[in-house]
Amino acid sequence: MLNIQENYFTIILNIFNLLTGINHHLRLILIGFGVVGQDLTKLILSRASDLYSSFGLKPRIVAVADKLGVVSAPEGLDLQKLLNTKRISKSVVYYDKNRSQKNVMETIEETEAEVLIELTPTNIANGEPGITHIISGMKSGKHVITVNKGPLALEFPSLIELAEYNQVAFRFSGTVGGGTPVLDFAKRCLKGDRILSFEGILNGTTNYILSKMGEGLSFSDALIDATAMGYAERDPTLDIEGFDAAAKLVIIANWVMGMKVTIKDVRRKGIKNLDMSDIRRATKEDSAIKLLAACDGKNMAVGPRSISKKDPLCVNGTLNAITFTSEHSGKQTIIGRGAGGIETASSIIRDLIEIRNTISFT
Amino acid sequence: MLNIQENYFTIILNIFNLLTGINHHLRLILIGFGVVGQDLTKLILSRASDLYSSFGLKPRIVAVADKLGVVSAPEGLDLQKLLNTKRISKSVVYYDKNRSQKNVMETIEETEAEVLIELTPTNIANGEPGITHIISGMKSGKHVITVNKGPLALEFPSLIELAEYNQVAFRFSGTVGGGTPVLDFAKRCLKGDRILSFEGILNGTTNYILSKMGEGLSFSDALIDATAMGYAERDPTLDIEGFDAAAKLVIIANWVMGMKVTIKDVRRKGIKNLDMSDIRRATKEDSAIKLLAACDGKNMAVGPRSISKKDPLCVNGTLNAITFTSEHSGKQTIIGRGAGGIETASSIIRDLIEIRNTISFT
Repeated sequence: MLNIQENYFTIILNIFNLLTGINHHLRLILIGFGVVGQDLTKLILSRASDLYSSFGLKPRIVAVADKLGVVSAPEGLDLQKLLNTKRISKSVVYYDKNRSQKNVMETIEETEAEVLIELTPTNIANGEPGITHIISGMKSGKHVITVNKGPLALEFPSLIELAEYNQVAFRFSGTVGGGTPVLDFAKRCLKGDRILSFEGILNGTTNYILSKMGEGLSFSDALIDATAMGYAERDPTLDIEGFDAAAKLVIIANWVMGMKVTIKDVRRKGIKNLDMSDIRRATKEDSAIKLLAACDGKNMAVGPRSISKKDPLCVNGTLNAITFTSEHSGKQTIIGRGAGGIETASSIIRDLIEIRNTISFT
Repeated sequence: MLNIQENYFTIILNIFNLLTGINHHLRLILIGFGVVGQDLTKLILSRASDLYSSFGLKPRIVAVADKLGVVSAPEGLDLQKLLNTKRISKSVVYYDKNRSQKNVMETIEETEAEVLIELTPTNIANGEPGITHIISGMKSGKHVITVNKGPLALEFPSLIELAEYNQVAFRFSGTVGGGTPVLDFAKRCLKGDRILSFEGILNGTTNYILSKMGEGLSFSDALIDATAMGYAERDPTLDIEGFDAAAKLVIIANWVMGMKVTIKDVRRKGIKNLDMSDIRRATKEDSAIKLLAACDGKNMAVGPRSISKKDPLCVNGTLNAITFTSEHSGKQTIIGRGAGGIETASSIIRDLIEIRNTISFT
């Protein structure tokens, strides 16, 4: 009965929209429903009236996929029910068996929606399944938002080209800096000047480990501490070996500096084999060893480097920091948390608002 | 002979523009021609081809005023000659006696130009002559850019209203942070979230003095040092008493937080009567006394406060730093030099590009 009522409502709404020429709904497909996906859903739920009144944004989640399968509803899923289902039953497929199915690719291609939000885990080896999802979304005419660094680290230039070819927007604010708008800052606020170079601490996990080592802990003890605090993943290779920082470096280099590069072009060194004596020496000289990602417009490198504690870049704990050097406006540093579910979800909201502003709903 | 040639060229150019419907020239009036005005002129001169190819911006300075009077030329002044005249003869009025006159207000009202750039010195007592220049520019239909903090500190809400009423743009990026795009960062990059509060070190001179006091110098010795370095003006009252920081605080509060306030609403305390024992105590506790400007959305205050050296906000020397706290994306800190002629001039270029993008030239 409820379903029939819902359908009637949708039909009436669609007729109204057709007559008035107004349809403010932005229909979203979420592929991946981990911390960020759930936090995004919570934000959409709690900020519904604010997003509409301030930004004309009425997001409607019409399909969600996790590891077990897909649930979809053209009139929009009940977000509270979706969150409860995920929390209690661990998968969205238990939302409603009549609305569930297995095929993610079919969902991306055939669901009527404006935006695909790709939130599967980062795979730095081959970028999958993210790359396939993103390509299929663009080819079926959907704008794409992702916070998945793998596809961008490996295929940035070709993904940008594909988006342009299909005339869809492609946004990825959350891939660098979590909720800290690093990409937007450099691309928009420094517009009008030429950015010559940048260097930054782009990985919070290694920065936490290095901060602890600066306090005297060994690498392995600092790693155990970081894992206990929930800052390091069970397999911390991506962080420790500098892959995560390198992926972010590639994204900034492409997007901000206009370079056409991939992670293969980055000279990369991790922090695993750091010598404790180097760290002690740095501390003595009022400096600290940091995992620095640097780009001078030609070369890109990630590796441990000693920087003065007086440099604004020298932040501790899980903080990220990046300094851009522009031709005329000098050096600017931006500092913030580089991760966090709600923070990253808020970056997706910013991307949605930007996409909303470029779409004509009439 | 040269003048006739120049006039023919201008006529032909105008006919061409009329026929093609294209006139990319953005005609500028500069009121005030000190360091920032001259550096802006240098930037326009050195970046001419880049500004046009990258941003479609072809600025043409059609009138310049300094203390002695005005020089103007509808077809555009020769910028190199203008700079040479100012350098050698100390005033633009010696550029060409046939093109010079006394009346600044007449120039603002009657010169055909798209943008008025107000660069007279900050007057925190009554905002003049800046306020009168800005109002007259807006009333005669010109977009206005200023780096003069006085008018904004005293009359922000009414100046914004006047700009809206006259349907002209009003930009002032250089008033806060010099070349560091603090206002743009908060207004654009943090869009989509709600900024709850901010606090910052907004005055480089006092920060330099406090940094030196942290190293053991007395207030008066630190001030002498700052003056010798060219960081403090001959009358340092505006900096020392916190007026400059308060003016910037007011600008951010209005523009970013949507408050309708003036400098009279700021609780203000300077650094003149700071106790050396407070500074010593802070140093012992791994903290530092900073002149902090803070706003929580309701109250605004400027005054010395002790902050931890681990806080990203705790920058030294002449650096400025500001931390915005948003509801969902957390804390973000932006750090850069808060002054400098070229840096501030580059912020005017950014404002010009933005205005250029909103104007239809056809």
